[in-house]
Amino acid sequence: MSTYLITGTSRGLGLSVAKKLLLQPVSEVSKIIAAARSESDALKAVISGSDGRVEYVPLEITDEEQIEEAVSLTADILGDNGLDVLINNAGIMPFTQGGIANMTDLKHVFEVNVLSVHNLTTAFIPLLEKGKLKRIINISTAMGSITQAPNYSLTPHPAYKIAKAALNMLTVQWHLAKYDDRFSFIASSLWVKTDLGGEIADLELEEAVSAITERLLHAGRQEAGKFLNIHVKGWENGKPGKHNYYDGKELPW
Amino acid sequence: MSTYLITGTSRGLGLSVAKKLLLQPVSEVSKIIAAARSESDALKAVISGSDGRVEYVPLEITDEEQIEEAVSLTADILGDNGLDVLINNAGIMPFTQGGIANMTDLKHVFEVNVLSVHNLTTAFIPLLEKGKLKRIINISTAMGSITQAPNYSLTPHPAYKIAKAALNMLTVQWHLAKYDDRFSFIASSLWVKTDLGGEIADLELEEAVSAITERLLHAGRQEAGKFLNIHVKGWENGKPGKHNYYDGKELPW
Ligand SMILES: NC(=O)c1ccc[n+]([C@@H]2O[C@H](COP(=O)([O-])OP(=O)(O)OC[C@H]3O[C@@H](n4cnc5c(N)ncnc54)[C@H](OP(=O)(O)O)[C@@H]3O)[C@@H](O)[C@H]2O)c1
Ligand SMILES: NC(=O)c1ccc[n+]([C@@H]2O[C@H](COP(=O)([O-])OP(=O)(O)OC[C@H]3O[C@@H](n4cnc5c(N)ncnc54)[C@H](OP(=O)(O)O)[C@@H]3O)[C@@H](O)[C@H]2O)c1
Repeated sequence: MSTYLITGTSRGLGLSVAKKLLLQPVSEVSKIIAAARSESDALKAVISGSDGRVEYVPLEITDEEQIEEAVSLTADILGDNGLDVLINNAGIMPFTQGGIANMTDLKHVFEVNVLSVHNLTTAFIPLLEKGKLKRIINISTAMGSITQAPNYSLTPHPAYKIAKAALNMLTVQWHLAKYDDRFSFIASSLWVKTDLGGEIADLELEEAVSAITERLLHAGRQEAGKFLNIHVKGWENGKPGKHNYYDGKELPW
Repeated sequence: MSTYLITGTSRGLGLSVAKKLLLQPVSEVSKIIAAARSESDALKAVISGSDGRVEYVPLEITDEEQIEEAVSLTADILGDNGLDVLINNAGIMPFTQGGIANMTDLKHVFEVNVLSVHNLTTAFIPLLEKGKLKRIINISTAMGSITQAPNYSLTPHPAYKIAKAALNMLTVQWHLAKYDDRFSFIASSLWVKTDLGGEIADLELEEAVSAITERLLHAGRQEAGKFLNIHVKGWENGKPGKHNYYDGKELPW
């Protein structure tokens, strides 16, 4: 009987995770708040087939007033229940052509991928306090690992990498502050075929979504404060010609 | 015959490093551009006793127009010479009382400590290209180490920690992009008694400034892309009752 809120559910990972959670029994997942800045046709279809278990909340995550409204709408939807799991999924990954000296989007990418996550988390803390699980998953990426940065030197997303490194530290700061209050903050990484991940990504959407949903359902206190790869069967040691592995274990910061 | 530009030279570390560099022979340090948002009395005194080797350039680092003016003033001062060493020192460390849920300054701290460093670096690249050393030192802190974050859980500066982690990734991104063009980007850490470091800091200003000046003078290609502690004699293994050590070696990201 747990409740979930996912940001960025118009498409991509967020939408697919909402669908996957819906396949769980009501006794496990009672309500999914699908936050998005617009109710896409794909999201409408999920909602209308959900028997009232998925509800849409409008949310442009950079808009602090909309965050406040989303908190109040969510509180109305949940009634006496708190929010159990918050998934900070919405994010952007723009391209920078011609090297870091051309990077002019750092401010914007930071505001979407880090500052908004902080504002949203802060605003939802009272509802999470009321929840049983108090679990927050921030969707990060191995490209945000400073240690592994040389692996991605040819990937033209400097602002994204800097923002996700900052998101990792944000996650750890929240973890250190709230662990004793029984909160679990986790940064989770993956590389999957979506608009953002691209066609050359390692993982099919279905396998990545299954793995990340496992994490949402079961991640616990022992995972708190960590930067974790998802665990995909058969990918524990990578694959021939592929760069990454998905063993469910910690990534270096 | 090398040329230096230091940001934030009105006081603290920046001012002291300018003074220390001035003690080097002209054959080693020919010109020091002291950038600051105001010419403090202390800075005036250094300049007037410098025989023309230290020159003031007004620079509020968050102001992109002032950055452009600073580049043009610096080019005038340097004449046919390029800029050899850029020290991104200016920075702020505000307090957050009552935990990270009260952190409302993340945007501002990021803009001062990270975005400005990026804009400034970008603007000075042409002058650095003309220089011989092409050395950029970003003043970071062990508080920006995500790995070491548990050591600092009681230090009430979450925005500073997040921004410095982002600064570390910014440094690495520049390093990866420019190493083959013979640039050396380095992130350097220390804890020293200044307005910002506080009275309880590990190091006396004099010993820290000597150590950081050594780095400025001699850091080379083998240090590029790294997150380095300064090296202070007698502090290689820390001191009784102290948390940190200063062995000149790498810190974990
Ligand atoms: N795909 C990967 O391989 C991969 C790897 C590592 C991490 N991630 C992370 O996973 C998350 C989701 O990625 P994805 O692959 O699903 O990307 P995607 O297919 O591009 O979808 C991004 C989602 O975020 C939403 N969004 C973007 N900016 C927003 C804003 N300001 N306010 C509200 N919603 C906003 C989008 O809404 P609109 O439809 O309105 O634009 C969309 O729903 C991101 O945080 C990404 O960094 C993805
Ligand atoms: N002290 C330490 O223990 C320690 C440890 C690790 C890292 N650091 C880093 O070392 C650097 C210098 O620290 P400090 O200890 O010397 O601090 P400080 O004594 O507080 O001096 C800070 C300097 O930065 C300048 N500054 C701040 N914001 C600026 C802006 N927007 N534009 C231009 N200048 C600006 C200040 O100018 P005004 O006088 O005009 O305010 C001042 O000159 C910082 O980046 C800090 O994070 C210090």
